[in-house]
Amino acid sequence: MDTNTQVKLINRPEGLPKASDFSIETNPIASPKEGEVLIKNHYISLDPAMRGWMRDVKSYIPPVELGAVMRAGAVGEILESKIEGYEKGDYVVNWAGVQKYGISDIQGLHKVDPRLVPLPKYLGALGMPGMTAYFGLLEIGKPQEGETVLVSGAAGAVGSVVGQIAKIKGCKVVGIAGGPEKCRHLIEDLGFDGAIDYKNENIYDGIKRTCPKGLDVYFDNVGGEILDAALSRIRKNARIVICGAISQYNNSDIQGPKNYLSLLVNRGTMKGMVVFDYAKDYGKAAMQMGMWMAEGKLQSKEFVIEGIEQFPDALLRLFNGNKMGKLVLKV
Amino acid sequence: MDTNTQVKLINRPEGLPKASDFSIETNPIASPKEGEVLIKNHYISLDPAMRGWMRDVKSYIPPVELGAVMRAGAVGEILESKIEGYEKGDYVVNWAGVQKYGISDIQGLHKVDPRLVPLPKYLGALGMPGMTAYFGLLEIGKPQEGETVLVSGAAGAVGSVVGQIAKIKGCKVVGIAGGPEKCRHLIEDLGFDGAIDYKNENIYDGIKRTCPKGLDVYFDNVGGEILDAALSRIRKNARIVICGAISQYNNSDIQGPKNYLSLLVNRGTMKGMVVFDYAKDYGKAAMQMGMWMAEGKLQSKEFVIEGIEQFPDALLRLFNGNKMGKLVLKV
Repeated sequence: MDTNTQVKLINRPEGLPKASDFSIETNPIASPKEGEVLIKNHYISLDPAMRGWMRDVKSYIPPVELGAVMRAGAVGEILESKIEGYEKGDYVVNWAGVQKYGISDIQGLHKVDPRLVPLPKYLGALGMPGMTAYFGLLEIGKPQEGETVLVSGAAGAVGSVVGQIAKIKGCKVVGIAGGPEKCRHLIEDLGFDGAIDYKNENIYDGIKRTCPKGLDVYFDNVGGEILDAALSRIRKNARIVICGAISQYNNSDIQGPKNYLSLLVNRGTMKGMVVFDYAKDYGKAAMQMGMWMAEGKLQSKEFVIEGIEQFPDALLRLFNGNKMGKLVLKV
Repeated sequence: MDTNTQVKLINRPEGLPKASDFSIETNPIASPKEGEVLIKNHYISLDPAMRGWMRDVKSYIPPVELGAVMRAGAVGEILESKIEGYEKGDYVVNWAGVQKYGISDIQGLHKVDPRLVPLPKYLGALGMPGMTAYFGLLEIGKPQEGETVLVSGAAGAVGSVVGQIAKIKGCKVVGIAGGPEKCRHLIEDLGFDGAIDYKNENIYDGIKRTCPKGLDVYFDNVGGEILDAALSRIRKNARIVICGAISQYNNSDIQGPKNYLSLLVNRGTMKGMVVFDYAKDYGKAAMQMGMWMAEGKLQSKEFVIEGIEQFPDALLRLFNGNKMGKLVLKV
């Protein structure tokens, strides 16, 4: 009989997470109780939000406890079911965490069909990042046809979907990403109208160059100086979606947006969002996004790393930008 | 024949405005052209927004030009009219600026009745500060009965009205002000539920003490550390009204809100407002506020300084807090 491989959080990281903040353990496979399923996971999702879950602070969900399996979204196959309506052989997205074999109750569990799209997409464009993009842009950003939408982290799992949905909605779309290859991808593969390589161009100049009339919507995944630069170019009644702040997650001293008074001058709105609030509408959004994929209007890339024991190293790619699209571990 | 006394902006201040940034000139009184009136001003309004108008930057209105009469709201009596519907002897709120005798066209001119309330109130609770409080709180803050509303600069012209309207709307109201006398005034005279003396209590502790369940609405007139402290205590779906940032207006390097990611965790909204956007509804708001005054539900204090030549000194009281209520110059 196979054994389980589990990645547990054993230290609360300071700054960038290190290998020594995690333990990789081999343990027996647990058995599901009534109301649970046993899942063999195929892919595990790596997301910037994980950094927040490692912190011992009050947030929208409790932190991961020290000694517990690291929280993560995952997709895999049910080996044994004690939940009615779920059968052995069903594929499910689940929250069993960074482990090969996980137990899940009904909470956060839903079936997916591997014949429609490859499994990793259920962690990306059709998963939490895709839902974040969909609801964050449409419900908070509220882009109107002809408006200019700027998105940071634009080659990432969330940003790439934000930009493509904004294009579908008839907006002018500019993405911010690091490096010429990502910028090329945004324009040539994803149909963005412009791209700013923040590693090779002053961000203030870049926004001025690509958005000469200013911004109506800014979807922020990064925070820091890029948020300030965007604030400096918003138009009247602009909406800023605060989705994340990857540039700040490893800092103990957060850089607040110095240009926030631009909200006053321009009657701007800055609003935070957490995707879980939209859970009841995930199904509708997934169907819409699936149709856009089928029509060729929405593309998504996954960046796959093999081996669950690669977790600590793979995680760093979220922060150093050394990946394109949705980062997943293949178990 | 009398002469005109005019206060002109002759330098763009760095940091706090100084006497040498202004010239006080004696000049002949101008004559109104067709479409203009000549006004003898009785009271001139001193407002934090003036500091922004002195800056040579793009904003919601153009900066005051060097050598021009300093922009200000004022209230006075028409001496000569070349506008139909306005007569000699009418009292009018106007934007003729910091001068004894001003010329105004129809823009921003409206009649007031000195028999209903004393003239200075038309620059305070029934003027721009009152309108700012009314629309900022009701349209952006959207307080609901039973919610907790925190306001900074609470003993000032805007903050004192914000708190009283929030009480009228059935909210729990806490004000932040500097010094025990202002805090006493908030609770005993204006009916606030709590007060925080930021000069004598740690602001984080003060908010925790007075708002143990957190904040639903924060109306910000000050920015800086107080904004950060408020962000750290917002409840889910809280609204933050960015009305001003008096603590930052004289800084060349603005302190951005480090705790802005609280907007994400708590799905909060931070929105800026400029009162001029609500001009078409001023009349309705003034009538409502007048009724509240008549019913004894809304009080307002004016802090009157005599002599137009006191302008540069008087202005500093906006920034050092050495006044209570609406600051006006009596001409």
